[in-house]
Amino acid sequence: MKKVLFASTALIATASVAAAEVNFSGYGRFGIGYVEDRVNVTGATTTASGAIVPTTADSDDAILVSRFRLNIDANVETDGGVEFSGRVRLQADEDSSTGEANSAGLNGARFSVIYGGLRVDAGNVAGAFDNLANYYGNEVGLELFAGQYSGVNYNFLAYSSTGSGANAVFFQYAVGDFAFGASYDQRTFFPGGGVTTDADRWDVSATYTFNNITAAVAYGQTDASGAGSDPSLTVLTLGGEWGDFGGTLFVADDATEVTATDGTAWGLSASYNLGAATTLLFTYGDGNADADLQQVAIGAIYDLGGGASLRGGLGVNDCDVCSDSTMVADFGAQFNF
Amino acid sequence: MKKVLFASTALIATASVAAAEVNFSGYGRFGIGYVEDRVNVTGATTTASGAIVPTTADSDDAILVSRFRLNIDANVETDGGVEFSGRVRLQADEDSSTGEANSAGLNGARFSVIYGGLRVDAGNVAGAFDNLANYYGNEVGLELFAGQYSGVNYNFLAYSSTGSGANAVFFQYAVGDFAFGASYDQRTFFPGGGVTTDADRWDVSATYTFNNITAAVAYGQTDASGAGSDPSLTVLTLGGEWGDFGGTLFVADDATEVTATDGTAWGLSASYNLGAATTLLFTYGDGNADADLQQVAIGAIYDLGGGASLRGGLGVNDCDVCSDSTMVADFGAQFNF
Amino acid sequence: MKKVLFASTALIATASVAAAEVNFSGYGRFGIGYVEDRVNVTGATTTASGAIVPTTADSDDAILVSRFRLNIDANVETDGGVEFSGRVRLQADEDSSTGEANSAGLNGARFSVIYGGLRVDAGNVAGAFDNLANYYGNEVGLELFAGQYSGVNYNFLAYSSTGSGANAVFFQYAVGDFAFGASYDQRTFFPGGGVTTDADRWDVSATYTFNNITAAVAYGQTDASGAGSDPSLTVLTLGGEWGDFGGTLFVADDATEVTATDGTAWGLSASYNLGAATTLLFTYGDGNADADLQQVAIGAIYDLGGGASLRGGLGVNDCDVCSDSTMVADFGAQFNF
Repeated sequence: MKKVLFASTALIATASVAAAEVNFSGYGRFGIGYVEDRVNVTGATTTASGAIVPTTADSDDAILVSRFRLNIDANVETDGGVEFSGRVRLQADEDSSTGEANSAGLNGARFSVIYGGLRVDAGNVAGAFDNLANYYGNEVGLELFAGQYSGVNYNFLAYSSTGSGANAVFFQYAVGDFAFGASYDQRTFFPGGGVTTDADRWDVSATYTFNNITAAVAYGQTDASGAGSDPSLTVLTLGGEWGDFGGTLFVADDATEVTATDGTAWGLSASYNLGAATTLLFTYGDGNADADLQQVAIGAIYDLGGGASLRGGLGVNDCDVCSDSTMVADFGAQFNF
Repeated sequence: MKKVLFASTALIATASVAAAEVNFSGYGRFGIGYVEDRVNVTGATTTASGAIVPTTADSDDAILVSRFRLNIDANVETDGGVEFSGRVRLQADEDSSTGEANSAGLNGARFSVIYGGLRVDAGNVAGAFDNLANYYGNEVGLELFAGQYSGVNYNFLAYSSTGSGANAVFFQYAVGDFAFGASYDQRTFFPGGGVTTDADRWDVSATYTFNNITAAVAYGQTDASGAGSDPSLTVLTLGGEWGDFGGTLFVADDATEVTATDGTAWGLSASYNLGAATTLLFTYGDGNADADLQQVAIGAIYDLGGGASLRGGLGVNDCDVCSDSTMVADFGAQFNF
Repeated sequence: MKKVLFASTALIATASVAAAEVNFSGYGRFGIGYVEDRVNVTGATTTASGAIVPTTADSDDAILVSRFRLNIDANVETDGGVEFSGRVRLQADEDSSTGEANSAGLNGARFSVIYGGLRVDAGNVAGAFDNLANYYGNEVGLELFAGQYSGVNYNFLAYSSTGSGANAVFFQYAVGDFAFGASYDQRTFFPGGGVTTDADRWDVSATYTFNNITAAVAYGQTDASGAGSDPSLTVLTLGGEWGDFGGTLFVADDATEVTATDGTAWGLSASYNLGAATTLLFTYGDGNADADLQQVAIGAIYDLGGGASLRGGLGVNDCDVCSDSTMVADFGAQFNF
């Protein structure tokens, strides 16, 4: 059997002459993931009072975790220098509830037009929050299981790696030290009975970079279709780098119009390069609402060269109304291609 | 993250030395699609008299339409010069009923053997109608929403881009100015209760090209399994090019054995190159049966170079028993790779 | 439409300079498959005594069979010479019950770390049996419909080409003429009602090659979770090549803890190169349990060059308690890429 080998470094040199091309990139990662008292929801029962109680079965706390991600990108450039591109992602993950594997799947397509500092995305797009500088900060662990945003409950427009995602539009414009973003998702639900419910979402952002510091602010809201006030989210982030040290700050006003999760959310994260190959990571996220998720985690990355690295993390998840905290940890290898 | 870039033009030069290769091609398109009074069927109710009435909910008339299509082709050539190839298509489309996106999917595989003027396809194949010269003519719009064949209701063997398709065989032989095609689909239904229903389909075609004109005729029929006469279709097409002008004519005898759609169908289409980059398109399709779909549409394509173009169309769908006509329009960009 | 051609032989020369790469390989095959009295199970009925009887409908005995298989492999090599790789397989097959086609699908991902003679696989892996030298021997037919292992009923850890597979680990170590393998599958079932059932599987193997002969032995067992004895399997294989002749021997102790299938299974296979392009194949498999499947088959492969070949086989399936034997045959083309 002849193998068709596609050499990456060799071909990059010839890419500049190509009018149309298909690119493949992505990463694989695998290792051990631990979640304290991991359970699998296998069904639900209804009590005499009408409450629905999920039936759970114990899973193994330590399971084999993995992800294979392949981005399929197609690009063309017009005579006038406008770039058109499309992306579909192929991804396989383990089933974290059962510890068994899932088959790989394909997500919804994203389309882009890029010209100078202007970028327009359509389809399965990331919105202004999902694209916001330092929103995610330094996430921790092989699986990025903890982040500074953990207290946020607003459901913003995000790129879906394993589903169809939204069918929305995102605009981005960069000029000098400033960048602006905005998205609009004409979302429609069909609850049945001939009813159509609009749940349109929009968000906007502004980003300013001065020296080694980046500040960003974003606001978004969702049409509640007359059912009360429109849920909204406001986020302010700060991020900077000083030599081997990097840090981010995060503050959000999370107005989901649900008492248990409404309020202020905050967090921070840090990274430190310890020598040539090791990076230490820390993240903390929290919120003042009863059900806001609090995450504290430390982690490390050890670079093996060639795009491969060993990664791991250790953290605790908790909330004010949670009966107990949950310890989370993972360790494994990641290779980017 | 290193990106694996595959340069198309650079590699074409080396393809002649390859015994086995995997090719990627396709297109992306996205834009705005408008359908007057677009609805989504969300269920069905049964009236007191037993009639089943679909429940529909209003959708947005104007939605974001898109398609990402990637053909995965594998080819080998034997020492004797026989080419074997296989194709699977990866495609993502918007959901035109709801205005939301669908995840990308894979279709059924098609296999081919090619030697000289002879080609045999097996699996998810296009039959003699689907391969017929000028059957589709100049379809109009970013989404090709209108065509000269609109009055035809016969369900012929066609390539499926998003499903498994048929498991059939197609033969094509070209000699000089003549080409012949034939297909056979050994189709079987299992309605349950241990019953097996044969619904085999076959079709044949002949094509003759003289100077700048191509004439083609095709006939096909489907086994009704003893339930009345076998449905059949006869099609005659003519197509020609005169400088910047191209046109097609279409006549069909549509014998679906259903009164509301049986009869003659006809249509025509035209294209005109207006300057170096713009092409104008027109198409018209109709039939004499009460439920035959009539389509009239005009459109344009503006070439941006590099495989990219702007495309749009405007048309009206109607039929004799339709309560009202429906306006359809779209506009957007397409890029081929 | 520009086609992106990836030349295999031309690019292999450049692969050594690449740190990260995505490879595509696989095969296509298509032809005619015959199964005597082929049926499709369309449902089931329950008799008055409570027995469940499947409802079957006749299918065509001779159908169009096909497979398109594309392996997507991503590889990186660290500075220290450790290779990390991930594989997802895209595969489309015909539906052998109905004679219709299936759409292509993606399977679960497999991850590998390779360093010197050591290999560790994780995810959708093949276990020690599935990787055992000469376990499958010379399988016969375009579809490899018969093999020497036919009397084995133990369900060992195997790579899944069309499903998610297991989420397991496989180790392999080769040193000189010896090779050792072992796998562990932390398998969990959730039958509902909050119950968790462990069904862990493990297996080990040893292989020794002396001159032109390879001997291999493997043992594996599955945790019965307290429900009786643990099912197990012991396999011994021998394989050798003498010029144009190759042969394998197979003996297994199949302890599935099910009376109808427990006992000894045995088989053998042979291949003979008849001239430069033709290979003749024979296989026989059987067991002493009442329900053990007996397979006898002969086949041939004719090499067309360039990775393409014509293949076919003819065989008979039977068992002690089967009401009748079943003739099986196929013929078609395969092309590797």
